[in-house]
Amino acid sequence: MNQNRPKVVVIGGGTGIFSVLSGLKDYPVDLSAVVSMADSGGSTGRLREEFGVLPPGDIRMALVALSEPRQTLAQLFTYRFEGQSLNHSFGNLFLVALADIKGGFANGIHEAARILGAKGRVFPVTLDNVHLRAKLENDQIIEGEANIDCPKHDGSLRIEQLYYDKPCRVNPEAAQVIREADLVVIGPGDLFSSIIPNLIVPGIKESLAESKAQKLYFCNLMTKFGETNDFRGEDFVWELEKYLKPNIFDWIIFNNHLPDRERVKKYEKENSKVVEYSIEALKNHQVRILEKDLIRSSGYIRHDFDKVAQAVLEVIQSQNNG
Amino acid sequence: MNQNRPKVVVIGGGTGIFSVLSGLKDYPVDLSAVVSMADSGGSTGRLREEFGVLPPGDIRMALVALSEPRQTLAQLFTYRFEGQSLNHSFGNLFLVALADIKGGFANGIHEAARILGAKGRVFPVTLDNVHLRAKLENDQIIEGEANIDCPKHDGSLRIEQLYYDKPCRVNPEAAQVIREADLVVIGPGDLFSSIIPNLIVPGIKESLAESKAQKLYFCNLMTKFGETNDFRGEDFVWELEKYLKPNIFDWIIFNNHLPDRERVKKYEKENSKVVEYSIEALKNHQVRILEKDLIRSSGYIRHDFDKVAQAVLEVIQSQNNG
Repeated sequence: MNQNRPKVVVIGGGTGIFSVLSGLKDYPVDLSAVVSMADSGGSTGRLREEFGVLPPGDIRMALVALSEPRQTLAQLFTYRFEGQSLNHSFGNLFLVALADIKGGFANGIHEAARILGAKGRVFPVTLDNVHLRAKLENDQIIEGEANIDCPKHDGSLRIEQLYYDKPCRVNPEAAQVIREADLVVIGPGDLFSSIIPNLIVPGIKESLAESKAQKLYFCNLMTKFGETNDFRGEDFVWELEKYLKPNIFDWIIFNNHLPDRERVKKYEKENSKVVEYSIEALKNHQVRILEKDLIRSSGYIRHDFDKVAQAVLEVIQSQNNG
Repeated sequence: MNQNRPKVVVIGGGTGIFSVLSGLKDYPVDLSAVVSMADSGGSTGRLREEFGVLPPGDIRMALVALSEPRQTLAQLFTYRFEGQSLNHSFGNLFLVALADIKGGFANGIHEAARILGAKGRVFPVTLDNVHLRAKLENDQIIEGEANIDCPKHDGSLRIEQLYYDKPCRVNPEAAQVIREADLVVIGPGDLFSSIIPNLIVPGIKESLAESKAQKLYFCNLMTKFGETNDFRGEDFVWELEKYLKPNIFDWIIFNNHLPDRERVKKYEKENSKVVEYSIEALKNHQVRILEKDLIRSSGYIRHDFDKVAQAVLEVIQSQNNG
């Protein structure tokens, strides 16, 4: 591993990747994000429908995470028009316009990163315009990421298979950055709407296999109804291995801090529970498991940016030492 | 007049002010724009209606005129979403979002100018949210700038009086920059939808009267149906004097170049003619009249940016020498 400025690639989407990028951006790592292109909800979904563009939402969040939050352009990126007819994230509009001006989504993102002074690079996992499909255990097919993320079907049904509606292939820049990484961080994030949508893009599994990078999985703090009902930590790992290969991870980081009763209670109405895990269940895995308090000290049960960063840095440090 | 870097204030709106600002921005003048806030059409009109904001359209054009056109942000400012549901100038959205983030339209404009690296400052003529009214010679009242600019009424009727629907007052920064100017340039631009909307804001007439600045009027090249049908150059001057005071101008610049027949012909179906003028008609005015070829060499009959700039610089030069 490059001791001075290790190449860290974070794969994910949504608020999960936001926490890892926000945490790491001020440390001496060469940071890249490979981001899901499955989003089909809200402002992003409406832009896809109206203009046939690639989904800007997850890219926008990754760019904001990598930016100095007090600067005007970062504030603009998180601004939202909430009118009856105009209801869009300004950052999404920015990325769609920039993609058009710069002759492509990837160029537009690089230009946005430059303008924002982002402390890292952001790569869409694919540049093909595809939509997610989930096959449930009762053989029902759910169409579109938005309907997986916010289920209108019986959310207690297990997702058996995730795939795309059309063939697609990995963005070559994303594949390259994974192959050349020192450390690849997968997660945290919604398993079927943010994480696995990256892994099922043809070329990602292969790039991960070819890469000499250490692979680290950041397990989620909470289960999610409609995606990971009653999942234990080891279920997350097994599910990922189904889409990659057994024993893919060198490191797994679990949260070992139980937030207080009041904070957990708010999640009950969403059928969301604190993720428990058993190290014993993973004993046949050749993996180093870190158990850490990763939770913000108050409010929503989310990853604390700096606790996340410290855990990643600990992994980097022990690789350097050993 | 400050010989090194004279303070030039341009009052207007739309494409007229665009040509003066574009022309002057690369010369050593301290450049400011005082811009009409009457626009109620198109993207600007829809934003006013949906969010109750001040009109961004004319401000956007002035900011773009003052910016380096090849830079990404200037390109974004001129970008347009042309969807069925999302149909807006991106620059307008930018200004509306920025006004909200920065706690006010004036602050938002200053921040936009900073981000764009604008070579001059832009001031809304008023910060009050008002709409234009025009009383026609048949006593009919036309509501809103958009309906004056693109008449749905009988456009051959003369506009007798222009006023606002509600009381308003001058933006103090606009008043100050006029009072401290060395040269105030009024026009070119649509008389009743871009120029006079500035002059009827209470405080503008007074600021112009108090200012020791030389006052220059740039007459239009073409008449406009519904606003200045069959106007001669001297009619433009007399109409402006009605709203200001007689003999307000130190300089008047007329175009003396007749574009070729083919170019003029295209304007006939819009009832638009080349503006003719008579110096004799203005002989009682204490004014210096410049006659210049001001027209672009091809295409639409518009002001040539550099010819406009050269004419203004000639005025500055003769003031310095005189």
